[in-house]
Amino acid sequence: MPHRMVYLDHSATTPVDPRVAAVMARCLTGTYGNPSSVHTYGQAARAAVDRARREVAALIGAKQNEIVFLSGGTEANNLAIRGLCEAASTHGRHLITSNIEHPSVRGACDALEKRGWEVTRLAVGSDGLINVGDIERALRPDTALVTVMLANNEIGTIQPIAEIGELIRERRAAGQRHLWLHTDAVQAGGRLNLNVDQLGCDLLSLSGHKFYAPKGVGALYVRRGVRLSGQNVGGHQERERRAGTENVPGIVAFGEAARVAREEIDSRVSHDRGLRDRFETMVQARITDIVLNGDREKRLPHLSNISFRYIEGEGLLINLDLQGVAVSTGSACSSGTLEPSPVIRALGHTDELARGSIRFSFGKDNTEEDVDYVVEVLTGVVARLRELSPLNKPSTLELQASR
Amino acid sequence: MPHRMVYLDHSATTPVDPRVAAVMARCLTGTYGNPSSVHTYGQAARAAVDRARREVAALIGAKQNEIVFLSGGTEANNLAIRGLCEAASTHGRHLITSNIEHPSVRGACDALEKRGWEVTRLAVGSDGLINVGDIERALRPDTALVTVMLANNEIGTIQPIAEIGELIRERRAAGQRHLWLHTDAVQAGGRLNLNVDQLGCDLLSLSGHKFYAPKGVGALYVRRGVRLSGQNVGGHQERERRAGTENVPGIVAFGEAARVAREEIDSRVSHDRGLRDRFETMVQARITDIVLNGDREKRLPHLSNISFRYIEGEGLLINLDLQGVAVSTGSACSSGTLEPSPVIRALGHTDELARGSIRFSFGKDNTEEDVDYVVEVLTGVVARLRELSPLNKPSTLELQASR
Repeated sequence: MPHRMVYLDHSATTPVDPRVAAVMARCLTGTYGNPSSVHTYGQAARAAVDRARREVAALIGAKQNEIVFLSGGTEANNLAIRGLCEAASTHGRHLITSNIEHPSVRGACDALEKRGWEVTRLAVGSDGLINVGDIERALRPDTALVTVMLANNEIGTIQPIAEIGELIRERRAAGQRHLWLHTDAVQAGGRLNLNVDQLGCDLLSLSGHKFYAPKGVGALYVRRGVRLSGQNVGGHQERERRAGTENVPGIVAFGEAARVAREEIDSRVSHDRGLRDRFETMVQARITDIVLNGDREKRLPHLSNISFRYIEGEGLLINLDLQGVAVSTGSACSSGTLEPSPVIRALGHTDELARGSIRFSFGKDNTEEDVDYVVEVLTGVVARLRELSPLNKPSTLELQASR
Repeated sequence: MPHRMVYLDHSATTPVDPRVAAVMARCLTGTYGNPSSVHTYGQAARAAVDRARREVAALIGAKQNEIVFLSGGTEANNLAIRGLCEAASTHGRHLITSNIEHPSVRGACDALEKRGWEVTRLAVGSDGLINVGDIERALRPDTALVTVMLANNEIGTIQPIAEIGELIRERRAAGQRHLWLHTDAVQAGGRLNLNVDQLGCDLLSLSGHKFYAPKGVGALYVRRGVRLSGQNVGGHQERERRAGTENVPGIVAFGEAARVAREEIDSRVSHDRGLRDRFETMVQARITDIVLNGDREKRLPHLSNISFRYIEGEGLLINLDLQGVAVSTGSACSSGTLEPSPVIRALGHTDELARGSIRFSFGKDNTEEDVDYVVEVLTGVVARLRELSPLNKPSTLELQASR
C-alpha cells in the first residue's frame, strides 16, 4: 500500500460531496415518483426536479425554463450541436469550431460533416487560445453555429467566449438571425463563476460529476428562443427536448451540487489555485526539462498540465499510481488510445512532448500535504524514468553525471 | 391525510430497493473514479461497471459484452431503432412495428420515416395481441427491422416475441441476412423471466427504474454481430456504441437490482399476481360497467387495466389520489395530454371507454391490506363520480334509483 492516496484527477471526475450524496440517498427511497405522473408521488418528484432546475439555472445566471436535464456533458454537446444544426438546416449548413474541443464536440461535428455540413476547424495558438479575429474571418452568411469550449479539458485554457459572444450578437443584430453560439462548459461549470448573459452564449453544456455531483446527469442551457431538434425522442419531458423519464435522484443531486457550488465557489477557486500554484512552483524548482502547457493566466485555477521531456506519460502515470497518486494523460475519454494528445499537439509540440504530458487537477479535499507528497513522489519517479528512458538524450545523462 | 398510502403505479416507476440504494450510496463516495481512467480509482470503477454488466447480462441470458449501458429505456429504444436502421440503411429501408408501442419506439420510427424510411404499423387485435401472420405478410426483402414490444406499458399484454423471433431467424437462414428483431422489454425486464435466446431477439431494451433500480439508467442488449450506429457520439465508452462517462453509481445499482431480481423473480411474480387477481376479483364483484383491458392470460402478472364506463379516468385518478391511492391513466410518458390513450383505442374501444381507463400496477411491497383498501376506496369513488357524471346514461341513474 502506498503511504498516501492523493486523487489529482478532478478534471476526469470528482468524488460526490457527502452533502450531495445525502440528498440523493433521501430521494432514492423517498421521492421515487415519476415526474410525469399526476398523483402525489409524481407531483413530489416534479417539485424536486423543479427545485433542482432553479439551482442549476442560478449557478449560471439562467432562467429555470432554459435548463434541459440530460445524462451528462457528452449528451449535452450532442444535443446542442446536432440538435441546433438539424433544426437550423434550412437557414445554413456551416459551423465553426476549434481544433482542441472535447471528443463529443468533435464527434458531433464529424457526424454533421458526414451529412453534408461544412465544418471550419480553427487552430489555437501555442498558448492554447483561439483568436477571435480568426472566428470573425471564418463567419459566413450560412454559418449556423459557432461552438468553442469555455475551458479546455486537458490544459485548462479559458477561451474568450464573451468576446465571441459579442461578435455573434453583432452579426445577429446586423441581420444574420440564425447564427448561434454554443460553449462546452463541462470543465468550467461549478468551478468558475459563470453567467450566460455575460458570456453571450446561446447554448452551454454542463456535467454534474465534474463538480461533486454524481455521474449520469448533466444539463444544457438553451437560451429562450433557440430551437433544437430533440435527439432522444418519444416523450414530452424537458419540453420535448429530451424524452425519457427524468433521472430524478441524479437531478436532485445535481441541483444540490449547484447550490453548494454557488455558495463555495470563491473559496474553492482560491483553495484550488493555491494548491496548484504551490505545486507548479515546487515542480519547477525540482524538475528540469519540463514545459507547462497552456496560457499561464487564462486557465482553470485547479488544473496544471505539464510535459516531461524524455518520458512517456503513460509510464509516469502508472508509477505515480503505484505510489497512490492519481493523475491522467490526455483526457480520460480518449484514453485507451496510444495516440499523442491532439490538444497538446495543437499547441505545436512534438509527438514526443505530447506523449510526455500529464494533467494534475486539484479539488476541494486536497491539502498542502497532498501537494508536498505528490511533488516528492513525482521528483523521484521522473528521475528514475529518465534514467531508464530510451528517449533520454545522451547529453542529459552526461549532465546529470557531471553534476 | 388519507388513512393509508398505497402506491399502485409500479409500471410508471418503482421505489428503489433499500439493498440497491445501499450499494449505490457506497459507490457514490467510495467508487468515484472515471472508468476510462488508467489509475487505481479508474480501475475500481471499471471493475464495478463490469460486475454490473455481468449481472444484467445474466438477468436475460446474454453475454457480458452484449450489454450496452445507457440512460434508460427511451434511450435504449432510440439507439436500437435509429442506431440499427442507420447502420443498415444500405441494405434496406423498411421497418415493421405495432400500433401499441411505447412513445419512444413510435418516436424513433417517426423520425426514420421523416428521413425516407418506410414504416409498416400493424394493428393489434381487441385482445391487444399482435398476429404473427400479419408480420409474416408484412415482411419484405428490404425489411431491416421488426420492432415489437415484449409487454405493453398500459395493458400489460405479452406479445409472441419468441414466435416472431423464430420467423425472423427463418428468413435470415433463407438469405435475408440484414433483418433483425428488436423488442422493448422495459415493462417486462426484471419482472418476468426472460432469455434472449429463447426470445430470438437481436436487440432488447431494459430500464432500471421499472424494477427497483434508480431512474437514469438502462441497457440495450445487442446480440453479437449486430451493428449499430451510435447516437450519442464522441467517446470510446461502451465499445463505441454510447459515448459519455458511464453513470457508475446508476449502473452499479442497476446491477444489484438485476442480481436481486434474478433471485426473487419467481416469488415476486406469484406475489404480484396474487394481489392483482385478488384485486380484479373484488372489483368485478363490486363495480358494474367495467371492461378489463387486454388478453386475460398473456399479460404481465402485476398489471391490471380497467375501463370504467361513464367516468373520466383523470377524475378517478385525482379522487383516488386524495385518498392516498396512486394509479395512472394511459402511460406516464404521454400524460399531460387530454387525448384518449392510443393503446386502449387500438383495442377497438370508443374514445369514452379509452378516457375512462385506469392502470393499477402492483409491486413487491404491496400487501393484501393495500388491495382491500384500494377496492373500498375505488368502489366509493366510482359510485360518486358516476352519480355526478354527465357521461352517465340516464338509464343507469334510474337503475340505481330503483334498486
